[in-house]
Amino acid sequence: MERRSSPITVFFPSSILSDVPSLSEKTFKVGQIARAASIFRVDKLVIYPDGTGWRRDARLIHSLLSYAETPQYLRKRIFPISPQFRFAGLIPPLRTPHHPLGSSNVEYREGLVLDSGANGSMVDLGLKDPIRCRIPLPRNSRVTMRLEGSAWVPVPRESVPLYWGYVVLVEERSLRDILATRPSDLLIATSRLGIPAWQMAGPISRAISRRSSVSLIFGSPKEGLHEILRREGRSLEELVDMTINVVPGQGTATIRTEEAIMISLALLDFIGGSPVTSGKS
Amino acid sequence: MERRSSPITVFFPSSILSDVPSLSEKTFKVGQIARAASIFRVDKLVIYPDGTGWRRDARLIHSLLSYAETPQYLRKRIFPISPQFRFAGLIPPLRTPHHPLGSSNVEYREGLVLDSGANGSMVDLGLKDPIRCRIPLPRNSRVTMRLEGSAWVPVPRESVPLYWGYVVLVEERSLRDILATRPSDLLIATSRLGIPAWQMAGPISRAISRRSSVSLIFGSPKEGLHEILRREGRSLEELVDMTINVVPGQGTATIRTEEAIMISLALLDFIGGSPVTSGKS
Repeated sequence: MERRSSPITVFFPSSILSDVPSLSEKTFKVGQIARAASIFRVDKLVIYPDGTGWRRDARLIHSLLSYAETPQYLRKRIFPISPQFRFAGLIPPLRTPHHPLGSSNVEYREGLVLDSGANGSMVDLGLKDPIRCRIPLPRNSRVTMRLEGSAWVPVPRESVPLYWGYVVLVEERSLRDILATRPSDLLIATSRLGIPAWQMAGPISRAISRRSSVSLIFGSPKEGLHEILRREGRSLEELVDMTINVVPGQGTATIRTEEAIMISLALLDFIGGSPVTSGKS
Repeated sequence: MERRSSPITVFFPSSILSDVPSLSEKTFKVGQIARAASIFRVDKLVIYPDGTGWRRDARLIHSLLSYAETPQYLRKRIFPISPQFRFAGLIPPLRTPHHPLGSSNVEYREGLVLDSGANGSMVDLGLKDPIRCRIPLPRNSRVTMRLEGSAWVPVPRESVPLYWGYVVLVEERSLRDILATRPSDLLIATSRLGIPAWQMAGPISRAISRRSSVSLIFGSPKEGLHEILRREGRSLEELVDMTINVVPGQGTATIRTEEAIMISLALLDFIGGSPVTSGKS
Protein backbone atom coordinates (compact mmCIF):
# COMPACT_ATOMS: atom_id res chain seq x y z
CA MET A 1 0.00 0.00 0.00
CA GLU A 2 1.29 3.45 -0.95
CA ARG A 3 2.14 6.13 1.57
CA ARG A 4 -0.47 8.83 2.19
CA SER A 5 -0.57 11.99 0.12
CA SER A 6 -1.79 13.81 3.26
CA PRO A 7 0.77 12.78 5.90
CA ILE A 8 -0.62 12.14 9.39
CA THR A 9 1.18 12.91 12.66
CA VAL A 10 -0.20 11.71 15.99
CA PHE A 11 0.68 13.56 19.23
CA PHE A 12 0.14 11.92 22.61
CA PRO A 13 1.55 12.48 26.10
CA SER A 14 4.29 10.50 27.86
CA SER A 15 1.74 9.77 30.62
CA ILE A 16 -0.45 7.40 28.57
CA LEU A 17 0.90 4.37 30.44
CA SER A 18 0.03 5.79 33.86
CA ASP A 19 -3.35 4.04 34.07
CA VAL A 20 -1.93 0.51 33.90
CA PRO A 21 0.49 -0.85 36.49
CA SER A 22 2.39 -3.73 34.87
CA LEU A 23 4.97 -3.80 32.11
CA SER A 24 2.94 -6.41 30.22
CA GLU A 25 -0.08 -4.10 30.13
CA LYS A 26 2.07 -1.11 29.19
CA THR A 27 3.59 -3.18 26.36
CA PHE A 28 0.12 -4.20 25.13
CA LYS A 29 -1.02 -0.60 25.14
CA VAL A 30 1.96 0.55 23.09
CA GLY A 31 1.43 -2.43 20.77
CA GLN A 32 -2.11 -1.26 20.10
CA ILE A 33 -0.82 2.19 19.16
CA ALA A 34 1.81 0.64 16.87
CA ARG A 35 -0.90 -1.42 15.16
CA ALA A 36 -3.31 1.53 14.80
CA ALA A 37 -0.54 3.67 13.31
CA SER A 38 0.42 0.93 10.84
CA ILE A 39 -3.13 0.02 9.79
CA PHE A 40 -3.83 3.70 8.98
CA ARG A 41 -0.38 4.49 7.54
CA VAL A 42 0.59 7.14 10.07
CA ASP A 43 3.85 8.89 9.24
CA LYS A 44 4.94 10.19 12.61
CA LEU A 45 4.22 9.49 16.28
CA VAL A 46 5.25 12.25 18.68
CA ILE A 47 5.41 11.81 22.45
CA TYR A 48 5.09 15.11 24.31
CA PRO A 49 6.19 15.61 27.94
CA ASP A 50 3.53 15.19 30.65
CA GLY A 51 3.85 14.46 34.36
CA THR A 52 6.80 13.88 36.65
CA GLY A 53 9.34 11.32 35.51
CA TRP A 54 8.17 11.93 31.96
CA ARG A 55 11.55 11.16 30.41
CA ARG A 56 11.55 7.60 31.71
CA ASP A 57 7.98 7.02 30.47
CA ALA A 58 8.73 8.60 27.09
CA ARG A 59 11.86 6.47 26.73
CA LEU A 60 9.91 3.26 27.36
CA ILE A 61 7.18 4.20 24.86
CA HIS A 62 9.80 5.27 22.32
CA SER A 63 11.73 2.01 22.71
CA LEU A 64 8.65 -0.19 22.35
CA LEU A 65 7.28 1.73 19.37
CA SER A 66 10.68 1.63 17.66
CA TYR A 67 11.02 -2.08 18.39
CA ALA A 68 7.59 -2.74 16.88
CA GLU A 69 8.46 -0.68 13.80
CA THR A 70 11.77 -2.52 13.17
CA PRO A 71 11.57 -5.50 10.81
CA GLN A 72 11.81 -8.73 12.82
CA TYR A 73 15.07 -9.77 11.17
CA LEU A 74 16.88 -6.65 12.47
CA ARG A 75 15.52 -6.53 16.01
CA LYS A 76 18.16 -8.69 17.67
CA ARG A 77 20.95 -6.64 16.12
CA ILE A 78 19.46 -3.23 16.90
CA PHE A 79 17.95 -3.77 20.35
CA PRO A 80 20.22 -5.24 23.03
CA ILE A 81 18.53 -7.54 25.56
CA SER A 82 16.88 -5.25 28.11
CA PRO A 83 14.20 -5.62 30.81
CA GLN A 84 11.98 -3.16 28.97
CA PHE A 85 11.58 -5.67 26.12
CA ARG A 86 10.61 -8.55 28.42
CA PHE A 87 7.06 -8.56 27.04
CA ALA A 88 7.85 -7.30 23.54
CA GLY A 89 6.67 -10.67 22.19
CA LEU A 90 3.15 -9.50 23.07
CA ILE A 91 3.26 -6.80 20.39
CA PRO A 92 1.46 -8.15 17.32
CA PRO A 93 3.53 -8.22 14.09
CA LEU A 94 2.82 -5.08 12.07
CA ARG A 95 3.07 -6.79 8.66
CA THR A 96 3.58 -3.49 6.86
CA PRO A 97 5.28 -3.47 3.43
CA HIS A 98 8.67 -2.93 5.14
CA HIS A 99 8.20 -6.10 7.22
CA PRO A 100 8.36 -8.71 4.44
CA LEU A 101 7.85 -12.33 5.41
CA GLY A 102 11.07 -14.36 5.08
CA SER A 103 13.26 -13.38 2.15
CA SER A 104 10.40 -12.69 -0.24
CA ASN A 105 11.38 -10.80 -3.32
CA VAL A 106 10.68 -7.13 -2.86
CA GLU A 107 12.14 -4.02 -4.45
CA TYR A 108 12.84 -2.20 -1.19
CA ARG A 109 14.23 -3.57 2.08
CA GLU A 110 15.34 -2.17 5.42
CA GLY A 111 18.88 -3.06 6.46
CA LEU A 112 21.55 -2.62 9.09
CA VAL A 113 25.13 -1.78 8.14
CA LEU A 114 27.28 -4.54 9.68
CA ASP A 115 30.63 -3.39 8.43
CA SER A 116 32.00 -0.54 6.38
CA GLY A 117 35.28 0.49 4.80
CA ALA A 118 36.78 2.30 1.84
CA ASN A 119 35.66 -0.54 -0.47
CA GLY A 120 32.02 -0.44 0.57
CA SER A 121 29.69 -1.90 3.16
CA MET A 122 28.12 -5.16 4.27
CA VAL A 123 24.42 -4.81 4.97
CA ASP A 124 22.00 -7.24 6.65
CA LEU A 125 18.75 -7.05 4.66
CA GLY A 126 17.21 -10.15 6.20
CA LEU A 127 18.19 -12.19 3.12
CA LYS A 128 20.07 -15.47 3.32
CA ASP A 129 23.41 -13.64 3.46
CA PRO A 130 24.39 -10.02 4.12
CA ILE A 131 24.74 -8.09 0.86
CA ARG A 132 27.74 -6.14 -0.32
CA CYS A 133 27.29 -2.51 -1.34
CA ARG A 134 29.90 -0.31 -3.04
CA ILE A 135 29.04 2.77 -1.03
CA PRO A 136 30.66 3.19 2.40
CA LEU A 137 27.78 3.60 4.86
CA PRO A 138 27.97 4.47 8.57
CA ARG A 139 28.49 1.28 10.56
CA ASN A 140 25.49 0.16 12.67
CA SER A 141 23.18 2.58 10.91
CA ARG A 142 19.79 1.54 9.63
CA VAL A 143 19.37 2.03 5.89
CA THR A 144 16.67 1.68 3.30
CA MET A 145 17.85 -0.06 0.13
CA ARG A 146 16.46 -0.57 -3.33
CA LEU A 147 17.18 -3.38 -5.75
CA GLU A 148 18.44 -1.87 -9.01
CA GLY A 149 19.14 -4.65 -11.47
CA SER A 150 21.09 -7.09 -9.33
CA ALA A 151 22.58 -4.50 -6.95
CA TRP A 152 21.16 -3.08 -3.73
CA VAL A 153 21.66 0.68 -3.41
CA PRO A 154 20.85 2.92 -0.44
CA VAL A 155 17.94 5.33 -0.97
CA PRO A 156 16.30 7.95 1.24
CA ARG A 157 13.53 6.39 3.29
CA GLU A 158 11.14 9.11 2.09
CA SER A 159 11.69 8.09 -1.54
CA VAL A 160 9.93 4.74 -1.05
CA PRO A 161 6.47 5.04 -2.61
CA LEU A 162 5.06 2.39 -0.25
CA TYR A 163 3.93 2.94 3.35
CA TRP A 164 7.25 2.44 5.06
CA GLY A 165 6.40 2.54 8.77
CA TYR A 166 6.27 5.42 11.19
CA VAL A 167 8.94 7.60 12.77
CA VAL A 168 8.84 8.05 16.57
CA LEU A 169 9.94 11.30 18.18
CA VAL A 170 10.20 12.41 21.79
CA GLU A 171 9.54 16.14 22.14
CA GLU A 172 11.27 18.16 24.85
CA ARG A 173 9.00 21.15 24.38
CA SER A 174 5.65 21.57 26.08
CA LEU A 175 2.53 20.84 24.06
CA ARG A 176 1.82 24.58 24.01
CA ASP A 177 5.16 25.33 22.38
CA ILE A 178 4.83 22.45 19.92
CA LEU A 179 1.40 23.54 18.74
CA ALA A 180 2.46 27.19 18.51
CA THR A 181 4.86 26.19 15.71
CA ARG A 182 1.93 24.64 13.74
CA PRO A 183 3.46 21.20 13.05
CA SER A 184 0.91 20.43 10.27
CA ASP A 185 -1.41 22.29 7.93
CA LEU A 186 -4.45 21.10 9.91
CA LEU A 187 -4.33 20.65 13.69
CA ILE A 188 -7.15 18.50 15.06
CA ALA A 189 -7.51 18.15 18.83
CA THR A 190 -9.64 15.37 20.33
CA SER A 191 -11.75 15.93 23.43
CA ARG A 192 -15.04 14.89 25.02
CA LEU A 193 -15.83 18.60 25.00
CA GLY A 194 -15.29 18.86 21.23
CA ILE A 195 -17.77 19.11 18.37
CA PRO A 196 -19.12 15.73 17.14
CA ALA A 197 -16.66 14.54 14.50
CA TRP A 198 -19.30 14.24 11.74
CA GLN A 199 -19.95 17.98 11.96
CA MET A 200 -16.35 18.64 10.94
CA ALA A 201 -16.26 16.11 8.09
CA GLY A 202 -16.51 18.85 5.44
CA PRO A 203 -13.45 20.91 6.46
CA ILE A 204 -11.39 17.78 7.16
CA SER A 205 -12.31 16.24 3.83
CA ARG A 206 -11.42 19.43 1.94
CA ALA A 207 -8.05 19.69 3.71
CA ILE A 208 -7.18 16.09 2.84
CA SER A 209 -8.22 16.57 -0.79
CA ARG A 210 -5.72 19.48 -0.92
CA ARG A 211 -3.04 17.03 0.35
CA SER A 212 -2.61 19.04 3.53
CA SER A 213 -0.67 17.43 6.35
CA VAL A 214 -2.79 16.60 9.39
CA SER A 215 -1.95 16.36 13.10
CA LEU A 216 -4.21 14.50 15.52
CA ILE A 217 -3.64 15.50 19.15
CA PHE A 218 -4.60 13.44 22.21
CA GLY A 219 -4.76 14.19 25.95
CA SER A 220 -3.75 12.00 28.86
CA PRO A 221 -5.66 9.47 30.99
CA LYS A 222 -5.81 12.08 33.78
CA GLU A 223 -6.27 15.35 31.92
CA GLY A 224 -7.96 16.38 28.71
CA LEU A 225 -6.24 18.73 26.27
CA HIS A 226 -8.16 21.74 27.58
CA GLU A 227 -6.77 21.18 31.08
CA ILE A 228 -3.22 20.49 29.88
CA LEU A 229 -3.08 23.71 27.88
CA ARG A 230 -4.84 25.78 30.55
CA ARG A 231 -2.11 24.65 32.94
CA GLU A 232 0.41 25.85 30.36
CA GLY A 233 -1.31 29.23 30.20
CA ARG A 234 -3.04 28.95 26.81
CA SER A 235 -6.43 27.90 25.57
CA LEU A 236 -6.74 24.89 23.29
CA GLU A 237 -8.93 26.78 20.82
CA GLU A 238 -6.21 29.40 20.21
CA LEU A 239 -3.72 26.75 19.14
CA VAL A 240 -5.64 24.22 17.04
CA ASP A 241 -7.97 24.45 14.04
CA MET A 242 -10.73 22.31 15.51
CA THR A 243 -11.53 20.16 18.54
CA ILE A 244 -13.57 17.07 17.76
CA ASN A 245 -15.37 14.50 19.90
CA VAL A 246 -14.86 11.17 18.15
CA VAL A 247 -17.55 9.26 20.11
CA PRO A 248 -20.24 11.79 21.06
CA GLY A 249 -22.44 9.05 22.56
CA GLN A 250 -19.81 6.98 24.33
CA GLY A 251 -21.19 4.19 26.52
CA THR A 252 -18.16 4.20 28.82
CA ALA A 253 -17.14 6.93 31.28
CA THR A 254 -13.74 7.26 29.61
CA ILE A 255 -11.98 6.25 26.40
CA ARG A 256 -8.36 5.18 26.71
CA THR A 257 -5.75 6.92 24.60
CA GLU A 258 -4.95 3.81 22.54
CA GLU A 259 -8.67 3.37 21.85
CA ALA A 260 -9.11 7.04 20.97
CA ILE A 261 -6.16 6.80 18.55
CA MET A 262 -7.65 3.79 16.71
CA ILE A 263 -11.12 5.38 16.56
CA SER A 264 -9.87 8.81 15.44
CA LEU A 265 -7.66 7.35 12.73
CA ALA A 266 -10.60 5.24 11.50
CA LEU A 267 -12.75 8.36 11.17
CA LEU A 268 -9.98 10.42 9.57
CA ASP A 269 -9.36 7.65 7.04
CA PHE A 270 -13.08 7.32 6.31
CA ILE A 271 -13.50 11.09 5.85
CA GLY A 272 -10.38 11.28 3.69
CA GLY A 273 -11.60 8.43 1.49
CA SER A 274 -15.00 9.87 0.73
CA PRO A 275 -15.43 12.60 -1.88
CA VAL A 276 -15.33 16.17 -0.59
CA THR A 277 -18.68 16.98 0.98
CA SER A 278 -20.16 20.45 1.12
CA GLY A 279 -18.98 22.16 4.31
CA LYS A 280 -21.24 22.02 7.31
CA SER A 281 -19.40 24.39 9.62
CA MET B 1 -25.70 7.53 28.05
CA GLU B 2 -28.97 6.19 26.61
CA ARG B 3 -29.23 2.92 24.77
CA ARG B 4 -29.28 3.04 20.97
CA SER B 5 -32.51 3.44 19.04
CA SER B 6 -30.95 1.27 16.30
CA PRO B 7 -29.69 -1.78 18.23
CA ILE B 8 -26.35 -3.22 17.10
CA THR B 9 -25.43 -6.91 17.11
CA VAL B 10 -21.86 -8.05 16.40
CA PHE B 11 -21.20 -11.56 15.03
CA PHE B 12 -17.72 -13.08 15.18
CA PRO B 13 -16.33 -16.63 15.05
CA SER B 14 -15.19 -18.79 17.97
CA SER B 15 -11.78 -18.99 16.24
CA ILE B 16 -10.77 -15.36 16.89
CA LEU B 17 -8.30 -16.42 19.60
CA SER B 18 -6.48 -18.88 17.34
CA ASP B 19 -3.80 -16.37 16.28
CA VAL B 20 -2.44 -15.82 19.81
CA PRO B 21 -0.98 -18.63 21.90
CA SER B 22 -1.19 -17.55 25.54
CA LEU B 23 -4.15 -17.08 27.86
CA SER B 24 -2.95 -13.57 28.74
CA GLU B 25 -3.04 -12.55 25.06
CA LYS B 26 -6.42 -14.23 24.55
CA THR B 27 -7.75 -12.36 27.59
CA PHE B 28 -6.43 -9.04 26.25
CA LYS B 29 -8.05 -9.67 22.90
CA VAL B 30 -11.44 -10.40 24.46
CA GLY B 31 -10.98 -7.35 26.70
CA GLN B 32 -10.55 -5.17 23.62
CA ILE B 33 -13.81 -6.51 22.19
CA ALA B 34 -15.59 -5.87 25.50
CA ARG B 35 -14.29 -2.29 25.50
CA ALA B 36 -15.22 -1.65 21.86
CA ALA B 37 -18.74 -3.01 22.45
CA SER B 38 -19.18 -0.82 25.54
CA ILE B 39 -17.76 2.37 24.02
CA PHE B 40 -20.18 2.04 21.08
CA ARG B 41 -23.15 0.73 23.09
CA VAL B 42 -23.45 -2.62 21.35
CA ASP B 43 -26.52 -4.60 22.45
CA LYS B 44 -25.51 -8.13 21.58
CA LEU B 45 -22.32 -10.08 20.89
CA VAL B 46 -22.81 -13.41 19.14
CA ILE B 47 -20.08 -16.06 18.84
CA TYR B 48 -20.67 -18.39 15.88
CA PRO B 49 -19.02 -21.82 15.56
CA ASP B 50 -15.79 -22.05 13.56
CA GLY B 51 -13.00 -24.64 13.58
CA THR B 52 -12.44 -27.83 15.52
CA GLY B 53 -12.81 -27.61 19.27
CA TRP B 54 -15.02 -24.57 18.75
CA ARG B 55 -17.10 -25.18 21.87
CA ARG B 56 -14.11 -24.84 24.17
CA ASP B 57 -13.01 -21.61 22.44
CA ALA B 58 -16.55 -20.21 22.45
CA ARG B 59 -16.93 -21.03 26.15
CA LEU B 60 -13.72 -19.16 27.02
CA ILE B 61 -14.74 -16.08 25.00
CA HIS B 62 -18.25 -16.21 26.49
CA SER B 63 -16.89 -16.46 30.03
CA LEU B 64 -14.47 -13.58 29.63
CA LEU B 65 -16.99 -11.31 27.90
CA SER B 66 -19.59 -12.09 30.59
CA TYR B 67 -17.05 -11.47 33.33
CA ALA B 68 -16.15 -8.10 31.82
CA GLU B 69 -19.82 -7.14 31.51
CA THR B 70 -20.63 -8.01 35.15
CA PRO B 71 -20.36 -5.12 37.64
CA GLN B 72 -17.19 -5.53 39.73
CA TYR B 73 -19.14 -5.95 42.99
CA LEU B 74 -20.92 -9.07 41.70
CA ARG B 75 -18.01 -10.84 40.01
CA LYS B 76 -16.79 -12.82 43.01
CA ARG B 77 -20.30 -14.12 43.70
CA ILE B 78 -21.14 -15.02 40.10
CA PHE B 79 -17.82 -16.39 38.81
CA PRO B 80 -16.16 -19.12 40.84
CA ILE B 81 -12.36 -19.11 40.89
CA SER B 82 -11.26 -20.76 37.65
CA PRO B 83 -8.05 -20.98 35.61
CA GLN B 84 -9.76 -19.22 32.70
CA PHE B 85 -9.99 -16.03 34.79
CA ARG B 86 -6.30 -16.07 35.75
CA PHE B 87 -5.65 -12.95 33.64
CA ALA B 88 -9.09 -11.37 33.97
CA GLY B 89 -7.45 -8.49 35.84
CA LEU B 90 -6.00 -7.45 32.48
CA ILE B 91 -9.46 -6.56 31.13
CA PRO B 92 -9.89 -2.80 31.51
CA PRO B 93 -12.94 -1.70 33.55
CA LEU B 94 -15.86 -0.96 31.22
CA ARG B 95 -17.22 1.96 33.28
CA THR B 96 -20.61 1.75 31.60
CA PRO B 97 -23.69 3.20 33.40
CA HIS B 98 -24.39 -0.25 34.92
CA HIS B 99 -20.91 -0.33 36.50
CA PRO B 100 -21.28 2.52 39.02
CA LEU B 101 -18.24 3.44 41.08
CA GLY B 102 -18.70 2.49 44.76
CA SER B 103 -22.23 2.90 46.12
CA SER B 104 -22.96 6.08 44.18
CA ASN B 105 -26.60 7.01 44.08
CA VAL B 106 -28.17 5.81 40.87
CA GLU B 107 -31.73 4.95 39.91
CA TYR B 108 -30.92 1.53 38.47
CA ARG B 109 -28.52 -1.15 39.72
CA GLU B 110 -27.63 -4.71 38.81
CA GLY B 111 -27.98 -7.24 41.60
CA LEU B 112 -27.67 -10.88 42.56
CA VAL B 113 -30.42 -12.63 44.54
CA LEU B 114 -28.70 -14.02 47.66
CA ASP B 115 -31.71 -15.56 49.33
CA SER B 116 -35.39 -15.91 48.59
CA GLY B 117 -38.54 -17.11 50.34
CA ALA B 118 -42.27 -16.53 50.66
CA ASN B 119 -41.62 -13.17 52.37
CA GLY B 120 -39.35 -11.78 49.70
CA SER B 121 -35.69 -11.74 48.65
CA MET B 122 -32.31 -10.42 49.73
CA VAL B 123 -30.40 -8.86 46.86
CA ASP B 124 -26.77 -7.73 46.66
CA LEU B 125 -26.76 -4.43 44.75
CA GLY B 126 -23.19 -3.50 45.64
CA LEU B 127 -24.45 -1.16 48.35
CA LYS B 128 -23.22 -1.24 51.95
CA ASP B 129 -25.71 -3.99 52.82
CA PRO B 130 -27.86 -6.33 50.75
CA ILE B 131 -31.35 -4.91 50.22
CA ARG B 132 -34.63 -6.58 51.06
CA CYS B 133 -37.29 -6.85 48.35
CA ARG B 134 -40.88 -8.00 48.86
CA ILE B 135 -41.00 -10.02 45.67
CA PRO B 136 -39.66 -13.60 45.78
CA LEU B 137 -36.99 -13.80 43.08
CA PRO B 138 -35.10 -16.89 41.87
CA ARG B 139 -32.11 -17.47 44.13
CA ASN B 140 -28.68 -16.80 42.51
CA SER B 141 -30.26 -15.03 39.57
CA ARG B 142 -29.01 -11.71 38.31
CA VAL B 143 -31.61 -8.97 38.39
CA THR B 144 -31.93 -5.36 37.33
CA MET B 145 -33.54 -3.18 39.99
CA ARG B 146 -34.95 0.33 40.10
CA LEU B 147 -35.19 2.65 43.08
CA GLU B 148 -38.84 3.69 43.46
CA GLY B 149 -39.16 6.05 46.41
CA SER B 150 -37.13 4.22 49.03
CA ALA B 151 -37.75 0.69 47.71
CA TRP B 152 -35.81 -1.28 45.12
CA VAL B 153 -38.05 -3.18 42.69
CA PRO B 154 -37.03 -5.63 39.96
CA VAL B 155 -37.52 -4.38 36.39
CA PRO B 156 -36.88 -5.93 32.98
CA ARG B 157 -33.36 -5.18 31.85
CA GLU B 158 -34.70 -3.89 28.53
CA SER B 159 -36.75 -1.23 30.34
CA VAL B 160 -33.65 0.66 31.48
CA PRO B 161 -33.32 3.72 29.25
CA LEU B 162 -29.53 3.83 29.75
CA TYR B 163 -26.95 1.73 27.90
CA TRP B 164 -27.01 -1.30 30.16
CA GLY B 165 -24.21 -3.49 28.81
CA TYR B 166 -24.22 -6.19 26.17
CA VAL B 167 -25.64 -9.69 26.09
CA VAL B 168 -23.31 -12.53 24.96
CA LEU B 169 -24.66 -15.52 23.06
CA VAL B 170 -22.99 -18.66 21.73
CA GLU B 171 -24.70 -19.86 18.54
CA GLU B 172 -24.86 -23.58 17.73
CA ARG B 173 -25.96 -22.97 14.16
CA SER B 174 -23.59 -22.33 11.28
CA LEU B 175 -23.13 -18.75 10.11
CA ARG B 176 -25.07 -19.65 6.95
CA ASP B 177 -28.09 -20.75 8.98
CA ILE B 178 -27.88 -17.75 11.29
CA LEU B 179 -27.79 -15.24 8.44
CA ALA B 180 -30.59 -17.06 6.59
CA THR B 181 -32.92 -16.09 9.47
CA ARG B 182 -32.04 -12.39 9.01
CA PRO B 183 -31.11 -11.55 12.61
CA SER B 184 -31.38 -7.77 12.00
CA ASP B 185 -33.03 -5.37 9.56
CA LEU B 186 -29.65 -4.55 8.01
CA LEU B 187 -26.90 -7.17 7.68
CA ILE B 188 -23.44 -5.69 7.06
CA ALA B 189 -20.55 -8.06 6.33
CA THR B 190 -16.95 -6.87 6.63
CA SER B 191 -14.28 -8.02 4.20
CA ARG B 192 -11.13 -6.85 2.44
CA LEU B 193 -13.02 -7.68 -0.75
CA GLY B 194 -15.93 -5.40 0.15
CA ILE B 195 -16.86 -1.96 -1.12
CA PRO B 196 -15.10 0.96 0.64
CA ALA B 197 -17.25 1.82 3.66
CA TRP B 198 -17.73 5.47 2.64
CA GLN B 199 -19.52 4.35 -0.53
CA MET B 200 -22.21 2.69 1.61
CA ALA B 201 -22.66 5.62 4.04
CA GLY B 202 -25.96 6.66 2.40
CA PRO B 203 -27.85 3.36 2.78
CA ILE B 204 -26.44 2.77 6.28
CA SER B 205 -27.35 6.27 7.41
CA ARG B 206 -30.90 5.91 6.09
CA ALA B 207 -31.37 2.55 7.81
CA ILE B 208 -30.20 3.96 11.15
CA SER B 209 -32.45 7.00 10.81
CA ARG B 210 -35.39 4.55 10.43
CA ARG B 211 -34.29 2.93 13.74
CA SER B 212 -33.51 -0.33 11.94
CA SER B 213 -31.51 -2.93 13.85
CA VAL B 214 -28.04 -3.54 12.44
CA SER B 215 -25.79 -6.62 12.45
CA LEU B 216 -22.06 -6.33 11.82
CA ILE B 217 -20.48 -9.63 10.77
CA PHE B 218 -16.78 -10.52 11.00
CA GLY B 219 -14.65 -13.36 9.64
CA SER B 220 -11.84 -15.27 11.31
CA PRO B 221 -8.06 -14.75 11.44
CA LYS B 222 -7.68 -17.61 8.92
CA GLU B 223 -10.67 -17.18 6.64
CA GLY B 224 -12.68 -14.24 5.38
CA LEU B 225 -16.49 -14.36 5.33
CA HIS B 226 -16.54 -15.24 1.61
CA GLU B 227 -14.50 -18.37 2.29
CA ILE B 228 -16.45 -19.40 5.38
CA LEU B 229 -19.78 -19.20 3.55
CA ARG B 230 -18.44 -20.80 0.37
CA ARG B 231 -17.40 -23.75 2.54
CA GLU B 232 -20.96 -23.84 3.86
CA GLY B 233 -22.32 -23.91 0.31
CA ARG B 234 -23.64 -20.36 0.05
CA SER B 235 -22.35 -17.06 -1.24
CA LEU B 236 -21.94 -14.15 1.15
CA GLU B 237 -23.75 -11.75 -1.19
CA GLU B 238 -26.91 -13.89 -1.14
CA LEU B 239 -27.14 -13.64 2.64
CA VAL B 240 -26.20 -10.08 3.58
CA ASP B 241 -27.31 -6.63 2.44
CA MET B 242 -23.82 -5.26 1.85
CA THR B 243 -20.16 -6.17 2.25
CA ILE B 244 -17.93 -3.29 3.26
CA ASN B 245 -14.19 -2.82 3.49
CA VAL B 246 -13.59 -0.66 6.56
CA VAL B 247 -9.94 0.22 5.74
CA PRO B 248 -9.62 0.23 1.94
CA GLY B 249 -6.00 1.46 2.16
CA GLN B 250 -4.76 -0.64 5.07
CA GLY B 251 -1.02 -0.38 5.72
CA THR B 252 -0.82 -3.85 7.28
CA ALA B 253 -1.27 -7.20 5.54
CA THR B 254 -4.10 -8.14 7.90
CA ILE B 255 -6.41 -6.52 10.41
CA ARG B 256 -7.18 -8.52 13.54
CA THR B 257 -10.80 -9.18 14.45
CA GLU B 258 -10.69 -7.07 17.62
CA GLU B 259 -9.22 -4.20 15.58
CA ALA B 260 -11.81 -4.62 12.82
CA ILE B 261 -14.59 -4.55 15.43
CA MET B 262 -13.37 -1.27 16.95
CA ILE B 263 -12.86 0.33 13.53
CA SER B 264 -16.22 -0.84 12.11
CA LEU B 265 -18.15 0.32 15.17
CA ALA B 266 -16.41 3.70 14.97
CA LEU B 267 -17.53 4.10 11.35
CA LEU B 268 -21.07 2.86 12.02
CA ASP B 269 -21.38 5.30 14.93
CA PHE B 270 -20.02 8.15 12.82
CA ILE B 271 -22.38 7.37 9.92
CA GLY B 272 -25.33 7.00 12.28
CA GLY B 273 -24.56 10.32 13.98
CA SER B 274 -24.42 12.38 10.81
CA PRO B 275 -27.60 13.53 9.08
CA VAL B 276 -28.94 11.27 6.34
CA THR B 277 -26.91 11.84 3.21
CA SER B 278 -28.20 11.36 -0.28
CA GLY B 279 -27.52 7.80 -1.36
CA LYS B 280 -24.39 7.16 -3.35
CA SER B 281 -24.99 3.56 -4.32
